Amino acid sequence: MAVTLSGREVSEEIKNRLKEKIAKENVSPLLTIVQVGNREDSNVYIRMKIKYAEECGVKTDYTRLDRKIKEDELCKVIKQLNESDLVHGIIVQLPFDCENDINTDLITNLIDPKKDVDGLSNLNAGKLLHGQTKGDCFLPCTPNGCMELIRKSGIKIEGSRAVVIGRSKIVGSPMAQLLIWANATVTVLHSRSKNIPEIVKEADILVVAIGKAGFVKKEWVKKGAVVIDCGINAIKDETKKSGQRLVGDVEPDVKTVAGYMTPVPGGVGPMTVAMLISNTVDSAIEKKKN
Amino acid sequence: MAVTLSGREVSEEIKNRLKEKIAKENVSPLLTIVQVGNREDSNVYIRMKIKYAEECGVKTDYTRLDRKIKEDELCKVIKQLNESDLVHGIIVQLPFDCENDINTDLITNLIDPKKDVDGLSNLNAGKLLHGQTKGDCFLPCTPNGCMELIRKSGIKIEGSRAVVIGRSKIVGSPMAQLLIWANATVTVLHSRSKNIPEIVKEADILVVAIGKAGFVKKEWVKKGAVVIDCGINAIKDETKKSGQRLVGDVEPDVKTVAGYMTPVPGGVGPMTVAMLISNTVDSAIEKKKN
Repeated sequence: MAVTLSGREVSEEIKNRLKEKIAKENVSPLLTIVQVGNREDSNVYIRMKIKYAEECGVKTDYTRLDRKIKEDELCKVIKQLNESDLVHGIIVQLPFDCENDINTDLITNLIDPKKDVDGLSNLNAGKLLHGQTKGDCFLPCTPNGCMELIRKSGIKIEGSRAVVIGRSKIVGSPMAQLLIWANATVTVLHSRSKNIPEIVKEADILVVAIGKAGFVKKEWVKKGAVVIDCGINAIKDETKKSGQRLVGDVEPDVKTVAGYMTPVPGGVGPMTVAMLISNTVDSAIEKKKN
Repeated sequence: MAVTLSGREVSEEIKNRLKEKIAKENVSPLLTIVQVGNREDSNVYIRMKIKYAEECGVKTDYTRLDRKIKEDELCKVIKQLNESDLVHGIIVQLPFDCENDINTDLITNLIDPKKDVDGLSNLNAGKLLHGQTKGDCFLPCTPNGCMELIRKSGIKIEGSRAVVIGRSKIVGSPMAQLLIWANATVTVLHSRSKNIPEIVKEADILVVAIGKAGFVKKEWVKKGAVVIDCGINAIKDETKKSGQRLVGDVEPDVKTVAGYMTPVPGGVGPMTVAMLISNTVDSAIEKKKN
């Protein structure tokens, strides 16, 4: 039976480290969160970020913009935040809930790279592709949180076989790079890949971020593997008040063969939040130095 | 016996396409080449670039700077080229041959991304990691040349297994991304990987860029595979006047099992040059539009 890699627990440990860091460096980090519209899932994620930030001693500034906003108006908001001396981190909660077309790429790349604590800008991504994983860059939060959990397992990453399922900007693509630069041998699988079960079977480390409930089956997984499940999929469950529940991209019974596995919820999710706030603290420290 | 994927031949075909494009779009592309010092291998590469450019109708401006130059002076040269309205492409010939320390990353990222026809800046790399392989970006020349040769073989890339050996900024890392976004299932091997022969054996497409003469052996390669050899290694050969000859990262007898294979020299090398000049032409066309 797999050891549970609890993101909830690890994120609590990180909270303590961040509190100490803030006290030692004597900084007052400020994260601004920009939301367009009112998606309920976005509201939940934002509440989690604000709560964790406040518990660490990181201030937040939450701006919710109307669904009628136009792209150029949103650009103006971002530019003002870029210029503000008080702001150390800027995130836009995705996806936008807007009546008008907004170019997500344009917006995420408009954020000053020094304040891009989500690490989603092209510039931060390019540094990662070029192997710069430390200093003068922000690592994307979800993959960086996965790395923390993988390291927590104690498995030797160097020389291991890692398989990443998914190639999204936010998770899969940067995840593969982090594993490559940690010296794993990495294979990237995606919607057009063939023989997925056989390839998954080779993985000592498996990271799944494909957004399909229960995609990875028990028979696919190597005995003792580290399995990191980035999926958060809502499925019908009439036993619940809400009529639904959240499940991952990995079948729960994979834990009978895996060596280590993250739960959903309580696995990768809390780690994403922890890495976001950690990036914000680092940004404030960097700003103070310069 | 493998079909030879001749970069020399394909680069000639591209030369004709580029000539037509220049005539049709009525542009006068200008590439500037900046060299520091006087490495003999750099001199050879630069001569090849100038020759190919001129044959296409692309003008070149070649600046050779003294080995005594300081980093800030080199920065000034780059900034002037960035500002010049006449210049469409800027490359710095690497490695620098300089008495003083020059931060290569600083220089490659100082080049205006709109003129970064080598595609080596972090910004261009980030677009690639994010799946942007067309428009408003320049693809790195060697991997993009390899893609042309792979396409030339006629093999179906989508759904195939591809293995890239090497994770350098210039070849391995961007190569893996180009294959991923062409829908191959990609594994990246590097100096810390284990079981390299077994993993190579799975490859329908094998790209080798590890810089070790004859690294890949016949026994490792799947029958019928497309083998792209990016290596250019000088080894001793007393039968030659120069006392040496150039060999690739792949043993020559791999051609007895491969389906398609690039020669060294005359394979990837000429394609790198062709892609550089192609990027310069695109840059000139883009500039004319805006």
